[in-house]
Amino acid sequence: MKLRIHVTLKPGVLDPQGKAIEHALSGLGFAGVEGARVGKLIELEVAEGVTDDQVDAMCRQLLANTVIENYRVERG
Amino acid sequence: MKLRIHVTLKPGVLDPQGKAIEHALSGLGFAGVEGARVGKLIELEVAEGVTDDQVDAMCRQLLANTVIENYRVERG
Repeated sequence: MKLRIHVTLKPGVLDPQGKAIEHALSGLGFAGVEGARVGKLIELEVAEGVTDDQVDAMCRQLLANTVIENYRVERG
Repeated sequence: MKLRIHVTLKPGVLDPQGKAIEHALSGLGFAGVEGARVGKLIELEVAEGVTDDQVDAMCRQLLANTVIENYRVERG
């Protein structure tokens, strides 16, 4: 079973990588970019028996830093 | 308008960060994890007039390294 875990910075947390992208895009001549935030996309291949609770524990213990990051799990 | 750009390593490209996650999860006692790959999730806030072609150009010129990475744009 394939899981997609989106890890994003919480609103208000400074994102220098996002700011760099914003400036680089405007430097390359792309107008209309009003904001950029960078997160992680973790694709896990797990056995069928793995439960939602287990995936949640993986996120909280290793994959996301819940002090500054949110995560969202997508199945399939 | 909000865009989500998923940047993932092409199949076959070595992913040490994914391997580290795989080993760490098994070290933490999570069974059933058969693979992990790590990519980037870039959230762009763009003006309404920005076209698909322009977004595609942003990805090819800056956001993804198309030699080793695939990208997928999601609107909304």
